[in-house]
Amino acid sequence: MEQFFYSTQIYDNFIILPEDEALHALKVLRKNTGDMITVVDGKGGLYETRIESENIQSCRLNIISIDKEFGHQNYYIHIAITPPKSHDRVEWFVEKAVEIGVQEISFIHTDHSERKNIKLKRIEKRAVSSMKQSLKAFLPKINDIVPLKNLIKICSNDEKYIGYLNKGKNNHLIQSATPKSDYCMLIGPEGDFSSSEINESQKFGFKPVSLGDNRLRTETAGLAACHILNLLNAK
Amino acid sequence: MEQFFYSTQIYDNFIILPEDEALHALKVLRKNTGDMITVVDGKGGLYETRIESENIQSCRLNIISIDKEFGHQNYYIHIAITPPKSHDRVEWFVEKAVEIGVQEISFIHTDHSERKNIKLKRIEKRAVSSMKQSLKAFLPKINDIVPLKNLIKICSNDEKYIGYLNKGKNNHLIQSATPKSDYCMLIGPEGDFSSSEINESQKFGFKPVSLGDNRLRTETAGLAACHILNLLNAK
Repeated sequence: MEQFFYSTQIYDNFIILPEDEALHALKVLRKNTGDMITVVDGKGGLYETRIESENIQSCRLNIISIDKEFGHQNYYIHIAITPPKSHDRVEWFVEKAVEIGVQEISFIHTDHSERKNIKLKRIEKRAVSSMKQSLKAFLPKINDIVPLKNLIKICSNDEKYIGYLNKGKNNHLIQSATPKSDYCMLIGPEGDFSSSEINESQKFGFKPVSLGDNRLRTETAGLAACHILNLLNAK
Repeated sequence: MEQFFYSTQIYDNFIILPEDEALHALKVLRKNTGDMITVVDGKGGLYETRIESENIQSCRLNIISIDKEFGHQNYYIHIAITPPKSHDRVEWFVEKAVEIGVQEISFIHTDHSERKNIKLKRIEKRAVSSMKQSLKAFLPKINDIVPLKNLIKICSNDEKYIGYLNKGKNNHLIQSATPKSDYCMLIGPEGDFSSSEINESQKFGFKPVSLGDNRLRTETAGLAACHILNLLNAK
């Protein structure tokens, strides 16, 4: 099966593979000098390379061809989510959102939050592994947790939405959003956003939307929003 | 927050709560005789009840009102999925499918399967917990694992689909399926369905479809299919 490796040490005509990736390539998959491997840089770049040295500490790859815009798309999805209590569920959300397609993930602290911090290193690691698994070259920007009131002030995406339960009065996201746009979607905690948070967000241009009639867990709602925005932009 | 309890011991005018549910109601939530609780039967029935006895071994509830078709819907989603290697991912799929909405889940054994059996009791328990969490009254029918070739012969849903990677040649499920119908969707293993499985399924009326350009993990593909069919039927 096709396999991607990840490196951020990209030079003019060669790449250095980080130690954990080199270990996987050379020891687990038993690749040798001269073998071809595919490297992604997390910024949309895909590199076909040839292994030049079998040194795990400094595995050098020669770049044979470059695709700077691998999987380039004309829309941008930013999910700003309240992390659920269980960190497993936070990481699960990140893994699945990367598979389905997401450009930016922010974590927010809200009035009814159950978790005040996140393990950013673990989350980033999970995102890298999901990017490689799903054969993508783009790693989403992942922002550490900030209070919701800060995020809504600085958020500069073109279409801004806030999802909450409102007895069927909110339009469905799939009917509200327009294709080929730049979206930010706010996802609340299990106890939902407070009414003052909903009011404040609306002042900053966040439109109320619904994700359907089901009561979804936070991480499921985040993924559903991400999937809906991708479907809206699917061919 | 609103809370549902689950029982299958439903009589004319009373309900017996199973011991684990009674323990949760009486000890964890400290409910007392006379308190109202909401019970669902997993078959679409919702019961508003009053606690008559605080006996954990035989907690009796008086039925005050009944809604036999709580959350009734005019479509039916059957997902037949190849269980991934990790049983956690199998259970995760079931939890999320129940939240998003599913009427039947089958597990299939395929040519490239990585797992030959499933832990049905654990899966059913996870489905019950997800049904209660997402405030539903309907528990999907969950079928033990069978070979794909058996399932395709007996499958009697009206619209039958098989999802696999076909270089963008398959129509997207969201464009293929019609609203208010009765669907079955086959989801393959990580290594995809074999070409003989694809041919055989088509003989039995399964139409090839795509879930988009992303390479999704098995459990993610199953959930995406489930979400797409629900969106198609959303108001």
